[in-house]
Amino acid sequence: MTPDRYRTIRRVLDRRQPDLTLITDEVHKGRNLSALVRTCDAVGIDTIHCVIPKAGYRPYRGTALGSHKWVHTALHEQVDAPVAQLREQGFTIVAAHLSPRARDYRDLDYTRPTALLLGTEKCGVSAAALAAADREVVIPMMGMVASYNVSVAAAIILAEVQRQRQSAGLYDRCRLPEATYRQRLFQWCQP
Amino acid sequence: MTPDRYRTIRRVLDRRQPDLTLITDEVHKGRNLSALVRTCDAVGIDTIHCVIPKAGYRPYRGTALGSHKWVHTALHEQVDAPVAQLREQGFTIVAAHLSPRARDYRDLDYTRPTALLLGTEKCGVSAAALAAADREVVIPMMGMVASYNVSVAAAIILAEVQRQRQSAGLYDRCRLPEATYRQRLFQWCQP
Ligand SMILES: C[S@@+](CC[C@H](N)C(=O)[O-])C[C@H]1O[C@@H](n2cnc3c(N)ncnc32)[C@H](O)[C@@H]1O
Ligand SMILES: C[S@@+](CC[C@H](N)C(=O)[O-])C[C@H]1O[C@@H](n2cnc3c(N)ncnc32)[C@H](O)[C@@H]1O
Repeated sequence: MTPDRYRTIRRVLDRRQPDLTLITDEVHKGRNLSALVRTCDAVGIDTIHCVIPKAGYRPYRGTALGSHKWVHTALHEQVDAPVAQLREQGFTIVAAHLSPRARDYRDLDYTRPTALLLGTEKCGVSAAALAAADREVVIPMMGMVASYNVSVAAAIILAEVQRQRQSAGLYDRCRLPEATYRQRLFQWCQP
Repeated sequence: MTPDRYRTIRRVLDRRQPDLTLITDEVHKGRNLSALVRTCDAVGIDTIHCVIPKAGYRPYRGTALGSHKWVHTALHEQVDAPVAQLREQGFTIVAAHLSPRARDYRDLDYTRPTALLLGTEKCGVSAAALAAADREVVIPMMGMVASYNVSVAAAIILAEVQRQRQSAGLYDRCRLPEATYRQRLFQWCQP
């Protein structure tokens, strides 16, 4: 490992946001999950939660998810578990959802602990997940196609989250708990 | 065609932005082009310009590009042609590019005629295209991976463009030239 590489790793860990996460509610296309993970890394997310249906895409577990060294992925069989766990930790569950009830995604305060919940490619956020969510947000659509690709929708919302957190100085001081920091540093420095 | 469908088509045409476009500089993956077109539709872009290398992805011409009914695609063999054409029409050419010279993408005024230029998956914006660009913008990156997926980068910047144009009321009045409007209306109403 070069000193430069080590400095990059430290700088990225210094900006990780332990109070920001994503929950994917049965998103199942490998390339969407890959794009999501890449975007999460870019905005400083340390851990994401993926609800994975029992059948459907076993083959992707190893490739799209497992290969992502920089973002820790917690797998769940149902959406209730991560929602309950995150709520107990004080997170607000924000569902990205195309409904008349949803507010413009720019109107929320994302500097507080936030879990962004995304739905499947075909059917969107499940009824169970919607019932569990604290807020619903929507990205305004001006065109013929009714929705964004899920990884695109996530990126648009997370760019707003990043903007708010940057203004609030949340990337300017180290925020990971010390034990997590040391564990990630060890993992990331492995070849 | 149901009256509802006809109303939707009219409403979308009423919001199209003739002074907003995208130039893809040799983006060649079919799924990236598809995602780009879907995002362009969502922010009200009428026409995009794709620079397509001679070799490489003929097979996609028919599928990813041709199947997109809602966004007109102009194909070019080199980047000079669309740049010259758009500049003559008064467009500012804004290259999305990861360089130290680039400004934060949120600092530009996108209510003026804007062509957003995106680079290839591997090598980014070509030297020729950079030389021709008026501005360079970058999306801040906080993670280990050095760049966003090209369709994700475009969506993040276009969401900012859409926000600015929405505040400026540019979606509140019909802006397509009458001849284009009538042509699109005719095409879109075909089964
Ligand atoms: C392709 S969309 C699902 C479309 C589905 N037919 C529906 O109506 O929910 C996949 C996911 O992307 C997110 N998404 C897509 N477009 C969105 C938008 N305009 N606003 C908020 N979330 C969006 C949502 O989380 C959605 O569940
Ligand atoms: C995968 S990137 C190309 C990476 C290439 N290695 C480079 O350094 O340019 C593909 C395109 O997405 C856009 N892009 C990706 N991340 C970006 C960012 N953070 N800021 C601005 N544009 C970005 C640029 O147009 C880029 O040419």
